[in-house]
Amino acid sequence: MSDTIDLTTPSVDPESWTCPAPLRDQSRIVMGHGGGGTLSAELVRHVFAPAFGGDALAQLGDSAALLLGGVRLAFSTDSFVVRPLFFPGGSIGDLAVNGTVNDLAMSGARASYLSCGFILEEGVEMERVARVADALGRAARAAGVEVATGDTKVVESGHGDGIFINTAGIGLIPDGVDLRPQRVVPGDVVIVSGPIGVHGVAILSVREGLEFGVEIESDCAALGGLVGAMLAVTPDLHVLRDPTRGGLAAALNEIAAASGAGVVITEREIPVPQAVAGACAVLGLDPMYVANEGKLVAFVPREHADAVLDAMRAHPLGRESRIIGEAVEDHPGMVVARTGLGGTRVVDMPIGEQLPRIC
Amino acid sequence: MSDTIDLTTPSVDPESWTCPAPLRDQSRIVMGHGGGGTLSAELVRHVFAPAFGGDALAQLGDSAALLLGGVRLAFSTDSFVVRPLFFPGGSIGDLAVNGTVNDLAMSGARASYLSCGFILEEGVEMERVARVADALGRAARAAGVEVATGDTKVVESGHGDGIFINTAGIGLIPDGVDLRPQRVVPGDVVIVSGPIGVHGVAILSVREGLEFGVEIESDCAALGGLVGAMLAVTPDLHVLRDPTRGGLAAALNEIAAASGAGVVITEREIPVPQAVAGACAVLGLDPMYVANEGKLVAFVPREHADAVLDAMRAHPLGRESRIIGEAVEDHPGMVVARTGLGGTRVVDMPIGEQLPRIC
Repeated sequence: MSDTIDLTTPSVDPESWTCPAPLRDQSRIVMGHGGGGTLSAELVRHVFAPAFGGDALAQLGDSAALLLGGVRLAFSTDSFVVRPLFFPGGSIGDLAVNGTVNDLAMSGARASYLSCGFILEEGVEMERVARVADALGRAARAAGVEVATGDTKVVESGHGDGIFINTAGIGLIPDGVDLRPQRVVPGDVVIVSGPIGVHGVAILSVREGLEFGVEIESDCAALGGLVGAMLAVTPDLHVLRDPTRGGLAAALNEIAAASGAGVVITEREIPVPQAVAGACAVLGLDPMYVANEGKLVAFVPREHADAVLDAMRAHPLGRESRIIGEAVEDHPGMVVARTGLGGTRVVDMPIGEQLPRIC
Repeated sequence: MSDTIDLTTPSVDPESWTCPAPLRDQSRIVMGHGGGGTLSAELVRHVFAPAFGGDALAQLGDSAALLLGGVRLAFSTDSFVVRPLFFPGGSIGDLAVNGTVNDLAMSGARASYLSCGFILEEGVEMERVARVADALGRAARAAGVEVATGDTKVVESGHGDGIFINTAGIGLIPDGVDLRPQRVVPGDVVIVSGPIGVHGVAILSVREGLEFGVEIESDCAALGGLVGAMLAVTPDLHVLRDPTRGGLAAALNEIAAASGAGVVITEREIPVPQAVAGACAVLGLDPMYVANEGKLVAFVPREHADAVLDAMRAHPLGRESRIIGEAVEDHPGMVVARTGLGGTRVVDMPIGEQLPRIC
């Protein structure tokens, strides 16, 4: 058949790949293709990017920096399929705003406008739709972004799952700001804005009847203000990333791979709340791979690191910011953790997803 | 319960409504809420708009015209849940590009960038995903728009329906162009760019085993070029609308309601292909209510009507353009058709959807 695509023979230059493995022998979509790890990257690189062409290869899966009418814009989209719709600390409505606002913030842009597309399942309670819409509106006002345009589709019962939401967002990138992994150089300091693993564990705690004794609330928040405070110190930050699906491990691996620098982190410096560590121990998860929704990781030139850290700690969403490592010349493209025992271990890119549908 | 919303008591000013009926006693989402008719309008006006606030009330469900960094932008979004994924004349990939490109075109904007969010169902064949991506990429290149950013989520088998796609788009609105129903005045000439009802009937022809003897291909196309040719005659067009869900009837009713003008159309001037008329007769459908995906309706100042019509007919997508009616002072907000028998009939806003999931 002429329109059958041989997925083992990609049409892009193999030399340009940064994903560590070829596309697996998979003739069907598996949950891991939505996990933000290696499988997601392969789907983009082998299927979407060659089909879409243009600069999409470099930009898919991230916020795009565009020039339109002489103005520098960030443009990003995310779909939200979290289960359940309401969880400790938030809802799909909060995620739909903060997820996209944060993608824009990682370009240095303050989100100005959001689009909002609902895919509703026939039979879902109107009151649930209204509660989600209310949460979305409140989150938008809190983030200072306007919902400017929308769309609603309905699918038959059994062909959806209550409420799916897509948001896309646009915002201006300030002059002098150029946040890209390619700007990372050895010596850059790696800062994380607070405790990790909280969002994923909060979702798990209300799913499948799991309980951990302590209620863990999602850290879901809009990071535009925190990023603004950091850029006020210097526009010369090198790269920002919000470690959502795939967690801190995926974010650091993406930056290492795209920058060509090595990354070393010190395990004991990584802030993991006791409740998250406990839940992860029970479930056999590594907090480094668990999703966050209100945290960021920054690669900052060494000369600005202390001032940026001070500015982060002065912001309500960055009070527990910490330096966790640095970019190095050794092991280019690879993330290595110094363990508590004086050894090191490689922090791999996750393949699929430990926790499906956490956003 | 304090968070139960009384849907019979809207929190917006009743005087500002344009929907003809109050929200029905519906505690659950029905298919019609996604149909682009009265039920869709009520969901937006009673649930989404009050929750989102701002200018959303006026703009939801349409392309938004925004000012960002001193530049006039159009911003729009649509989700696509068409069933089946491939149909005569196109696929969900073509729709995902053309639907959003056309929403922007109705603001006079040429689409520059698209975002693209996939919600895939676990188990869907990779080859289908690749074929859809290929169609989407081809449609984007044909429309001259770049897919700049994307996202992929996967939901468990039985919680989706193969492939859902959301696209959002941005484009520049040219100087001097101001397309809004509020600009319609009595005397404006109503032009349709070609035969109606084709897309909806094409979808139906391959669904549920229906066959009509003649293969009807969807008219799915990107209208940016046609709109550009019209605006080259004069930037002073009053309003454009692509009659998708709810068909020509919904588009004309939306314009009449928002403008406060009456609209009169002449039934025999409305181009309905023989095959569409035949299929509609068999199924008990009215072609006026059947979705289109590559047509537009324009309200044009009388002095420019002939020149605009000539320009439309000179464009490949407007060869069969026709004047079908005019805006009038009588019956404000209402659409009336002159029938073949010398009488008139009211063309109502559809309530729900004759043909679910046609886009």
